[in-house]
Amino acid sequence: MKATIERATLLRGLSHVQSVVERRNTIPILSNVLIEAQAGGTMRLMATDLDLQIDETIAAAVDQPGAITLSAHTLFDIVRKLPEGSQVELAAAEGRITVNAGRAKFTLSTLPRDDFPMIAEGELPTTFELPAETLKQIIDKTRFAISTEETRYYLNGIFLHVTDDAQPLLRAAATDGHRLARVTVARPDGADGMPDVIVPRKCVAELRKLLDEVDGSVGVSLSASKIRFDLGQAILTSKLIDGTFPDYSRVIPTANDKILKIDPKSFMQGVDRVSTIATEKTRAVKMALDRDKIILSVTSPENGAAAEEVPGEYAALPFEIGFNSRYLMDILAQIEGDLVEVHLADAAAPTLIRENDSSPALYVLMPMRV
Amino acid sequence: MKATIERATLLRGLSHVQSVVERRNTIPILSNVLIEAQAGGTMRLMATDLDLQIDETIAAAVDQPGAITLSAHTLFDIVRKLPEGSQVELAAAEGRITVNAGRAKFTLSTLPRDDFPMIAEGELPTTFELPAETLKQIIDKTRFAISTEETRYYLNGIFLHVTDDAQPLLRAAATDGHRLARVTVARPDGADGMPDVIVPRKCVAELRKLLDEVDGSVGVSLSASKIRFDLGQAILTSKLIDGTFPDYSRVIPTANDKILKIDPKSFMQGVDRVSTIATEKTRAVKMALDRDKIILSVTSPENGAAAEEVPGEYAALPFEIGFNSRYLMDILAQIEGDLVEVHLADAAAPTLIRENDSSPALYVLMPMRV
Repeated sequence: MKATIERATLLRGLSHVQSVVERRNTIPILSNVLIEAQAGGTMRLMATDLDLQIDETIAAAVDQPGAITLSAHTLFDIVRKLPEGSQVELAAAEGRITVNAGRAKFTLSTLPRDDFPMIAEGELPTTFELPAETLKQIIDKTRFAISTEETRYYLNGIFLHVTDDAQPLLRAAATDGHRLARVTVARPDGADGMPDVIVPRKCVAELRKLLDEVDGSVGVSLSASKIRFDLGQAILTSKLIDGTFPDYSRVIPTANDKILKIDPKSFMQGVDRVSTIATEKTRAVKMALDRDKIILSVTSPENGAAAEEVPGEYAALPFEIGFNSRYLMDILAQIEGDLVEVHLADAAAPTLIRENDSSPALYVLMPMRV
Repeated sequence: MKATIERATLLRGLSHVQSVVERRNTIPILSNVLIEAQAGGTMRLMATDLDLQIDETIAAAVDQPGAITLSAHTLFDIVRKLPEGSQVELAAAEGRITVNAGRAKFTLSTLPRDDFPMIAEGELPTTFELPAETLKQIIDKTRFAISTEETRYYLNGIFLHVTDDAQPLLRAAATDGHRLARVTVARPDGADGMPDVIVPRKCVAELRKLLDEVDGSVGVSLSASKIRFDLGQAILTSKLIDGTFPDYSRVIPTANDKILKIDPKSFMQGVDRVSTIATEKTRAVKMALDRDKIILSVTSPENGAAAEEVPGEYAALPFEIGFNSRYLMDILAQIEGDLVEVHLADAAAPTLIRENDSSPALYVLMPMRV
């Protein structure tokens, strides 16, 4: 194998693949990137952690086709430090690879390409396209609610499912049991009959990074056990979480009749300020609602007390309710408009938060006793 | 005590004092800032860790003079989150302080000012002025070499001393036993007869941050046990390290006759590149010197080998020497010009690095066996 690649091109490709590679690996080849120089003037870069695989194609001047694997982080660090504008020559022979650029020369150990594990995709019968912008929105508005509790592994991702109603929809949901985020978009062509799937957190994170460099559409193909995102230059393939996502629709309140309309920005800033004195342990903020008058407060035995009045529209009966301030702020940070609706029932019932009844995103937050 | 302060003014003052306050304290009052509203329309903010004390004066509208202490980090966090342009009212009464700004109100616990420990400065007989720029240079060019080894506490700071030669000088030095940095400036008026002092690392760090906001001169006063820096709005007082700095002048080589002249930037980048494959443990880079030809190389049993030729002027006998790449790069990063002199003797002898014989800064680096 022998090929020459522009440093900037190689660096961009490696920056994508190296972030799939875990820093610590018990299986040595999982630290490696597979590079394959192809006769047509391209080079493939592949990396995997056995659950997630990235396959990126970049332009290269190929002298001699071939494939080899070497440490992904080492190669990335080397290329990162090479002078801008340099040409990088990669040449593999006899279990070693040499990396030449300008006056610098590296000789690195390799492992054979045949030992490199590939994720067997199998059949991916459901195929559809989503605009990159839509996919970004789905991720951005739900990922903060993904659970990190490993015992509840079926909550460690974003749940995707379609509805077969008169209005065909694609829904994405994430929850950690305390809060729920759901985004609804029109069901894309080809997604009918799609199995319910849970896309793991790491796949979501890598996909989101790649989307920053993508315009246009992303091809999505999936079966009940695998999903593939085709981003043009890069293809991301992930195993899906093998579990059952809870029937979250039951926790979305539909009859909360106490409606607060409030500017999400001043609401969030007020919560942020009063929660300064909340303790690490609880982070609870109390909301006292009265006619067009919302008082946020926090009391901490260690630090003292904080209170702030925020303006809002509220016409129902006065009452008090508590929330985890961090969770409330996470949700308010997702609201782009200058008004948010908070649908309350009582101090113990799930609260619905959304921009309005036609907004694609919807949030449910469980209250805390205060 | 009652006073009103502009949020931006209070925030800037608190940002200085809060960084002196340690995050964890066994003595509660050490978490606090002392605020003292003074009749003349000023407010003093003081914080201490018992070794270092900051005393800052800011403008305030004082309704009722008085002093109280409260949590520095909590007050800082609150003021940071207040809206820009707000007026902050502080009012202390009955063991509590209220912080009012706009619609937000905080009630925080306090401790009495009398319990707040002050560093007794005693007499500070030596007094001189240094331009802020000179003080910045002294710190920037030496602090990286300060030892972090707590057992060698007498190396945990910058050593300041004066010479009484025909040419009166003020010298600053720091070393960790592997490398030494020394900066020499003209001895300022008033510094004659100054005792040798070691300024602790934390004082150096806080001073350096404050210097970013200072033009003009800084007043320095010291005795054998305390030092005070008067930066106008802020006064920093620190205990000095009670120990003896080693006689470092003996390790500065004077007769190294193998001279390499090299561009510090391409030298540093070459070292950085080849050291990519160095292991965490050694970080050793080998330099092979031949007539106007310098080859940097690293060999790692795990990763492979790296070599790079860097251009340089060298006319002495060929030989090889090894350095800790991190230490070498730390020094090269301090060189501002486009040529640096490396004075070598042999593979085991201390190496002298400096821009030229008239540059105020000078570095000594111990080689490593490679």
